[in-house]
Amino acid sequence: MKKQDTAPQQHLITTTPFPASRKIYVSGTMHPEIKVAMREIQLEDTTDSYTKKKTPNQPVTVYDTSGPYTDSAKNVDVHNGIERIRESWVVKRNDVEQLEEFSSTYCNQRLKDKNLDHLRFNHLHKPKKAKKGKNVSQMHYAKQGIITPEMEYVAIRENQKLHEVKQLSKQHTGQNFGANIPDVITPEFVRDEIARGRAVLPSNINHPESEPMILGRNFLVKINANIGNSATTSCIEEEVEKAVWACRWGADNIMDLSTGDNIHETREWIIRNSPVPIGTVPIYQALEKVNGKAEDLTWEIFKDTLIEQAEQGVDYFTIHAGVRLSYVPMTAKRITGIVSRGGSIMAKWCLAHHKESFLYTHFEEICEIMKAYDVAFSLGDGLRPGCIADANDEAQFAELETLGELTKIAWKHDVQTFIEGPGHVPMHMIKTNMDKQLEACGEAPFYTLGPLTTDIAPGYDHITSGIGAAMIGWYGTAMLCYVTPKEHLGLPNKQDVRTGVITYKIAAHAADLAKGHPGAQHRDDALSKARFEFRWNDQFNLALDPELAREYHDETLPAEGAKIAHFCSMCGPKFCSMKISQEVRDYAAKKEIEASNALEEGLQEKAAEFKEKGSEVYL
Amino acid sequence: MKKQDTAPQQHLITTTPFPASRKIYVSGTMHPEIKVAMREIQLEDTTDSYTKKKTPNQPVTVYDTSGPYTDSAKNVDVHNGIERIRESWVVKRNDVEQLEEFSSTYCNQRLKDKNLDHLRFNHLHKPKKAKKGKNVSQMHYAKQGIITPEMEYVAIRENQKLHEVKQLSKQHTGQNFGANIPDVITPEFVRDEIARGRAVLPSNINHPESEPMILGRNFLVKINANIGNSATTSCIEEEVEKAVWACRWGADNIMDLSTGDNIHETREWIIRNSPVPIGTVPIYQALEKVNGKAEDLTWEIFKDTLIEQAEQGVDYFTIHAGVRLSYVPMTAKRITGIVSRGGSIMAKWCLAHHKESFLYTHFEEICEIMKAYDVAFSLGDGLRPGCIADANDEAQFAELETLGELTKIAWKHDVQTFIEGPGHVPMHMIKTNMDKQLEACGEAPFYTLGPLTTDIAPGYDHITSGIGAAMIGWYGTAMLCYVTPKEHLGLPNKQDVRTGVITYKIAAHAADLAKGHPGAQHRDDALSKARFEFRWNDQFNLALDPELAREYHDETLPAEGAKIAHFCSMCGPKFCSMKISQEVRDYAAKKEIEASNALEEGLQEKAAEFKEKGSEVYL
Repeated sequence: MKKQDTAPQQHLITTTPFPASRKIYVSGTMHPEIKVAMREIQLEDTTDSYTKKKTPNQPVTVYDTSGPYTDSAKNVDVHNGIERIRESWVVKRNDVEQLEEFSSTYCNQRLKDKNLDHLRFNHLHKPKKAKKGKNVSQMHYAKQGIITPEMEYVAIRENQKLHEVKQLSKQHTGQNFGANIPDVITPEFVRDEIARGRAVLPSNINHPESEPMILGRNFLVKINANIGNSATTSCIEEEVEKAVWACRWGADNIMDLSTGDNIHETREWIIRNSPVPIGTVPIYQALEKVNGKAEDLTWEIFKDTLIEQAEQGVDYFTIHAGVRLSYVPMTAKRITGIVSRGGSIMAKWCLAHHKESFLYTHFEEICEIMKAYDVAFSLGDGLRPGCIADANDEAQFAELETLGELTKIAWKHDVQTFIEGPGHVPMHMIKTNMDKQLEACGEAPFYTLGPLTTDIAPGYDHITSGIGAAMIGWYGTAMLCYVTPKEHLGLPNKQDVRTGVITYKIAAHAADLAKGHPGAQHRDDALSKARFEFRWNDQFNLALDPELAREYHDETLPAEGAKIAHFCSMCGPKFCSMKISQEVRDYAAKKEIEASNALEEGLQEKAAEFKEKGSEVYL
Repeated sequence: MKKQDTAPQQHLITTTPFPASRKIYVSGTMHPEIKVAMREIQLEDTTDSYTKKKTPNQPVTVYDTSGPYTDSAKNVDVHNGIERIRESWVVKRNDVEQLEEFSSTYCNQRLKDKNLDHLRFNHLHKPKKAKKGKNVSQMHYAKQGIITPEMEYVAIRENQKLHEVKQLSKQHTGQNFGANIPDVITPEFVRDEIARGRAVLPSNINHPESEPMILGRNFLVKINANIGNSATTSCIEEEVEKAVWACRWGADNIMDLSTGDNIHETREWIIRNSPVPIGTVPIYQALEKVNGKAEDLTWEIFKDTLIEQAEQGVDYFTIHAGVRLSYVPMTAKRITGIVSRGGSIMAKWCLAHHKESFLYTHFEEICEIMKAYDVAFSLGDGLRPGCIADANDEAQFAELETLGELTKIAWKHDVQTFIEGPGHVPMHMIKTNMDKQLEACGEAPFYTLGPLTTDIAPGYDHITSGIGAAMIGWYGTAMLCYVTPKEHLGLPNKQDVRTGVITYKIAAHAADLAKGHPGAQHRDDALSKARFEFRWNDQFNLALDPELAREYHDETLPAEGAKIAHFCSMCGPKFCSMKISQEVRDYAAKKEIEASNALEEGLQEKAAEFKEKGSEVYL
């Protein structure tokens, strides 16, 4: 069952660009050196079915998380890692120093181990760290009024060039539950949101390969994809490709949840090749170091793990510091007890030692590490419910209150912080989670796993959870952690990752639409217009998954001619409503005068109103 | 591309029973002859991980739509059709007559056509019809205070034997938005709901094979699966198997949307073998009869089609009688115009003739046909939005008002009626649809297609719509029309049907949970308990799709030993939170006294509370 770990092979990495798409790079104004990557989808012309006149359709620019892998002009070599775009920005701030060697004992042991040479990333960079007394977090800069290149980057990125769209269609007014989303995101708005703690820009100074992105309820809803090998399966090359693959389909963040062998080395490969921020749960690796015995965990081992990972470039740490000894008994009567791995590890530690969690007691020391590298907190919900019955219980909300207290401590240190949330929650109990989180945690971004809205569909938990994710995203959650079809059953393969990512892109986008995020409807409108006009290629190319859309279409109508056919296999040529609808338009265009005259002949009801509008019918 | 139609072959029909399940039949009290089919899932014992003591788990009974196909004691021969369980009930009422021949001209033409002999259903039954002056609708009986066997059947069916469950766990209080769901459904409650028009029991007297089911917001949320061949693909045997297959996975209703050749014969095969009610859109077939030219449609052709289908046993007709001439111009500025096939056909007819729709003008005549066979109205939303931009517009709601008027006319004739709804609607605009429908249509059941909550994911529209379906189900929709992954792209194959059905079972069940439907949480709790106790087989067997759950698990851990392993491939043996959580329980059980003493030593916070509960920790 277990495969041998090996270094990644270049040919396994997916680098195909998206169809009819080109990478574009938008430069900064305040920071002209920044180049914000976006994807521009070219569209075909619209042909008027009556006059046959052609009208061009403006290309659609979309948010792009895929990094250099989809840029045919770039040559990516995973053995070197991708371009370190933020490195000069970090250095220019003059508040970091380059260390001569890694600070973590464990890291240095691994580096000296010759047996690992064959799977090591070859071009290790020396780690950077804040100069003594300096704080290099984006929150720290923000509070000082500094707009960093990272901040301008995300402002440009969030806007998606929508202000350049001619005739941007009017979209529905959303219901945003108190979010405050401006029409155009300015760098100053980004700075202000980060300073208030309402947004997080994950950006470890040792992960300069990452393209800046922002989490917050006043920005586009983001998604996270979990990858990671485990003790029973997977190997490094698969994990690197899974990360690249997840970004390709739209993951804004990746969490590396590896628990098997060689996770230090696997992580290095992933970070060096990841265009998106990387999160981890350091307690998993710490537990490896004590051979899986939770009781044997110590603050010293955990601290060394934090430093090890911070110097590799992990952008955020899930830390279950809210699992307090006194909360553990509250889970005793649950159907599924504690289902968070980190939560159960810490609960076991607390009970075994009859002591308060060292994550809680050493929280300020952890903050000191975080701010020296700009690692953000993802405060873990170790007591999240693992089934519908356990939703919104005493244990869950007790922990949430503690996460709120810890948020305030983190903010005191200018450490960026977001909060993890459930889990398994029936639909009608989802909103309470959002409301309580906003209140307890001072509007720090919320980051939820689903939630799953029923427990009865293992094999389809991307869907049970996609429903909850869309809803909680609408209510104000900043990032949605994906769930794949394999949840509760096994480790996701590449297709599962793709399915999970696309499902969560759907949830995030549905949430943006419902919040009334400015311009969110643009892509929907462009795709729907293409659909109505039977521009099949445009319909595929504008889709979240162009390849699958085309594949499904071609299963029944494979011929290229069918791509311009004014019908599809669902109804056939005679029954297509869109075709008939188009015929109605054409018919009315020809018979305009007759049509309005006819009304006078027979119909009384609404005749006046119809007549008034008659000259406009289908013109 | 086009396959030859042939009669179905027995071996193509799926008859495998579900794992660890047996069919049970619950008898009636008022009507002892009725036998309500349910599925009982056997569970393994719970083994206490500390004492090793075994405790049995009560079997879980679930709602079962799969008909005789999953009963290993029954031998189904598709050439004879399935058992006609309702036939004697219908005859006993003494208000129907058996006709010597079919009343529809078209039907008789087809019967005389020797070229169709090879694909004809062989054991045609003579049609039944209400005796002159009689009304055989369930609504008519209900208004007279008669509780039919059909009504008692659905009462027993809805209760799912939940009142027999020992220790039914307490479930969350739901939010039901004004629904009124009793703890136990009585036959009298069913009657009353049907009499008020708030529920529909589709039950054409010519489809006695159908196992009674009910649609209404005070009952379990139901789902519909569309099948049907089209002019470009598919054949009879595939369609029959698709119907059986859809019921297997949980479809409560089937709509046969065939538009290709031989749809009369295909429909006969489907109805004779369908344990669930069948709906159609008669205008599709009527359009076939005029070679696809909407302008050539006449009331006479349509009427003959209604009679043809009513005598075959179609349980409900989608009729787009709300598409009035004056509403057509309201769709002119939409991005996707009219996307309902029926709607666009009628719009074209109205414009071509400059006349009010014959469906509208002949509505009372249609009612006369409906009540002679107990066909229910599914009043079609021909002007539903086809994209996010067009949601909740003037055209849509104008039609809804008309559907409300027509509902009142139908009710005057005691014709059972439900109302079709959208479509494509962003999340925050979904509830308005439900609220307006309840008001305009006097609480007649709502039956929606999704709605899709974004347009940008063709290939995944089961998910974009599953989100909206779950929400609108929660708000009060009685039946959710499924959407498959092929929506907008092609005709669903068997796997697409399965995916669509399971997705919608998820949506319906998530809605039941959120409404607080009594006992809805029972299956969730049973599955979650099995999950926590690592009863893998029970976890699979309780799932909506046991086969897929097992398949996914076995992909990474195929050995039978892994089915009792206290971990899974996701985390591996050392990291499994459930295993650790169990260890915490065991540990605490052993160290009970130490655990409570320890608190006194150091921790102040919550100490009193913890101590008080201390003796209960993980016992």
